Amino acid sequence: MFIMENIPACPVETTLLLIGNKWKVLILRDLLPGTKRFGELRQSIGKISQKVLTSNLRDMEAQGLVARKVYAEVPPRVEYSLTGLGESLRPVLASLDTWGRGYQREARRQKAR
Amino acid sequence: MFIMENIPACPVETTLLLIGNKWKVLILRDLLPGTKRFGELRQSIGKISQKVLTSNLRDMEAQGLVARKVYAEVPPRVEYSLTGLGESLRPVLASLDTWGRGYQREARRQKAR
Repeated sequence: MFIMENIPACPVETTLLLIGNKWKVLILRDLLPGTKRFGELRQSIGKISQKVLTSNLRDMEAQGLVARKVYAEVPPRVEYSLTGLGESLRPVLASLDTWGRGYQREARRQKAR
Repeated sequence: MFIMENIPACPVETTLLLIGNKWKVLILRDLLPGTKRFGELRQSIGKISQKVLTSNLRDMEAQGLVARKVYAEVPPRVEYSLTGLGESLRPVLASLDTWGRGYQREARRQKAR
């Protein structure tokens, strides 16, 4: 497993070093169900530019969260998937999901009043 | 409880709408143990400018995560604390903390080799 150098003392900051912006969280969300091609990922994330998606995928590849596989086809096919380290973030995503569901429920309740 | 309008369909995106940048996560981390004054918060977060801290605190106040209390003293004392909604994010912070601890352990193990 690839591990970064210069890790912060605080565990929360350590995690944020790897998934500290919303795009990285959404990339994780969309790769957790399985491998995706660049275009599929861009579409599933929604409003993200090609440049921003590429840059975040490169960070996540360099940090060992995402694996990039190029197939020698014409045109070349490029697929992204989570590494074991990326997969290990599943409980973090689950907690974001659980909290969001609670917030949505409360929003619906307030709207129904 | 104050709930925002126009909530995304995805629960993960809903959570990111409220804590989608690392500063907000660090503000949460540092207010979870209890009330802090602006200067204390700035110091505990570390490398954050006054402008960025103010702007994130304003967002979090507007979204109902943080309460701001001004005491009529000379000079006026301003204290920040989490609302019930802010407190409810404790399990999300706990999952970031747990994952970060695992990553730190692995980093130490690799360094010891």
